[in-house]
Amino acid sequence: MTEPLATPCLLIHRDIVRQNIQRLADYAAQHEIDLRPHTKTHKSQLLAAMQLKAGAVGLTVAKVGEAEVMARTGDDILVAYPTVDKPRTRRLARLAQHKTIRVAVDSTVAADALAGEARRVGTTVGILVDVDVGLHRTGVASSNLALALAQHVDRAAGLRLDGLFCYPGHVWDRPDGQAHALAQVAQTLAETLDLWWRHGLEAKIVSGGSTPTAYQSHLIRELSEIRPGTYVLNDMNTVRGGFCSLSDCAAQILSTVVSNAVPNQVVLDAGSKTLTSDLCRPAPDSGHGYIVEYPDARIPALTEEHAQVDISRCATKPQIGEQVTIIPNHICPCMNLQDSFWWQEGDATPEAVRIDARGMVS
Amino acid sequence: MTEPLATPCLLIHRDIVRQNIQRLADYAAQHEIDLRPHTKTHKSQLLAAMQLKAGAVGLTVAKVGEAEVMARTGDDILVAYPTVDKPRTRRLARLAQHKTIRVAVDSTVAADALAGEARRVGTTVGILVDVDVGLHRTGVASSNLALALAQHVDRAAGLRLDGLFCYPGHVWDRPDGQAHALAQVAQTLAETLDLWWRHGLEAKIVSGGSTPTAYQSHLIRELSEIRPGTYVLNDMNTVRGGFCSLSDCAAQILSTVVSNAVPNQVVLDAGSKTLTSDLCRPAPDSGHGYIVEYPDARIPALTEEHAQVDISRCATKPQIGEQVTIIPNHICPCMNLQDSFWWQEGDATPEAVRIDARGMVS
Repeated sequence: MTEPLATPCLLIHRDIVRQNIQRLADYAAQHEIDLRPHTKTHKSQLLAAMQLKAGAVGLTVAKVGEAEVMARTGDDILVAYPTVDKPRTRRLARLAQHKTIRVAVDSTVAADALAGEARRVGTTVGILVDVDVGLHRTGVASSNLALALAQHVDRAAGLRLDGLFCYPGHVWDRPDGQAHALAQVAQTLAETLDLWWRHGLEAKIVSGGSTPTAYQSHLIRELSEIRPGTYVLNDMNTVRGGFCSLSDCAAQILSTVVSNAVPNQVVLDAGSKTLTSDLCRPAPDSGHGYIVEYPDARIPALTEEHAQVDISRCATKPQIGEQVTIIPNHICPCMNLQDSFWWQEGDATPEAVRIDARGMVS
Repeated sequence: MTEPLATPCLLIHRDIVRQNIQRLADYAAQHEIDLRPHTKTHKSQLLAAMQLKAGAVGLTVAKVGEAEVMARTGDDILVAYPTVDKPRTRRLARLAQHKTIRVAVDSTVAADALAGEARRVGTTVGILVDVDVGLHRTGVASSNLALALAQHVDRAAGLRLDGLFCYPGHVWDRPDGQAHALAQVAQTLAETLDLWWRHGLEAKIVSGGSTPTAYQSHLIRELSEIRPGTYVLNDMNTVRGGFCSLSDCAAQILSTVVSNAVPNQVVLDAGSKTLTSDLCRPAPDSGHGYIVEYPDARIPALTEEHAQVDISRCATKPQIGEQVTIIPNHICPCMNLQDSFWWQEGDATPEAVRIDARGMVS
């Protein structure tokens, strides 16, 4: 008998990953929308290569460290993040000497910083103008401001105005309904594109999308590409949000029951240093993840290395030493806490795969 | 002019670390309590060595991976965690061949697993019996159960009964008052020790303590040693809990303002992949960390790589591109998200130091 895997660890099912990638690739092809998956979810060159092979036009990253890693796998990288400081803009300009690099920016400061570094090394960085479509995180606040920034970029040597960028991360829990929120996103994009058009500017790329809105992307006709991340693995956020089912969750945390000393409770060895403290966004009271073998169990509390599991509603009780399977609330930060994952193909012995861009925070 | 550090990054001030270590070392010496700092906070051999040099009797860890790292710096390691599975117990037994290894356990299953592996390699593992003093996370539920487990350990070849263990992590936010909670901890320990004594068993070590209760440890006369972790660095949990002041916080996250596109808000490049989603335990509504340069700012929302900062109450506004300093809510999981920290001595250029046990989850 083979020894169990040391826990806590991350197991990823290849078959489910393949299905998740293919399903969205088919949808994107059917609706003629380009797919540029956000690799911040998995931080893995292996998974990025699978996405590119299934037809993705390029890759998305948040940080420059991720861009440097993913540029080893893809030739066309979008940094969906406003880089503004010298260390970051310099590294991006260097990367743009050999790869297609685009950056989403929402300020002239960021645009000028990138332009300066690009000119210094004799290259060009593509710019998408980030417009706020309702999340109020980044993005210029109006179509007029988007026009002004686009004109600024268009005039700047070292930059190439490639299009428009938005992140509709607010749509899925919109109290006035997703359809209404999507229509507002479409309206903001349409107004901005019309304004650009009237001032002689073109948006070759209109980039949007997220996992929750991925299969509604065709309803926003202005979009040319989408950047979902989580869909490749899924998690309890996407399950409880109604965007997939439990069987679509490719990533699981294996964990061991290490204590049953407190009545009606067991303790697992996966705490917030494994599962993170992220609550489930569509169901904040559902606890810290879902235990596959014990659907009636609930994880009300995490400390750094302990999950306290309420087993009072479980007909059979987890035994000390037993290994259980957790689907985490939010898979993206969980991947970032592991150095490697176990890659499971059918019944074969899983292989360890390095998480290439783990911890690349800058 | 030197280039600014790439952000987000972790800066640790050596002078403050030294003061924090010395202050608690002095207290422990004064009250003749042994100090065995929990290294899960810093995961750094450098900081562990400073603690040992200041008189710590040994080091505490949560996970076996941490034990393996810290055993390169210290000879006496307490694993304050119930190891039960084969991968972990086997590795600990190997470690015990060359170092003093103790483990806190709360079940015969864990004791037997460790005994079996210890016998297999011809060594002995020291055992502390974990008794629940009110947190209800791990620990046997009564003095009688603690006696039964101690007798089991005492009979087992491969094990050495070294004492009693508790974690009074519930004391600091006890509604009926800390003094009352501390008295209850003392009572549980006294009852258990008396019962052991009457059955011919001795507890050479009685291990307790945490940062919030550290300076009250002498009020629990039964304790022979304490295991505080956070005190070496401190964070907003310990500041807002009233256990230290802002100037005692040795660890800071440097972060850059990357967007100011949304009115009354700036966005910092430190999100939950840097600060974690941990709220401040004594003040859950205080936001995601404290910005030193802008005490009137508040961080109400984090996403993975963005901190949204409400600056409506700031007299002067942070500028895009500006670097700011954040004291995180909970430093322990933040350390675990960085590969290295910047070690600052006075005005010298900071040096990069590897975080040796980062990511050692099993």
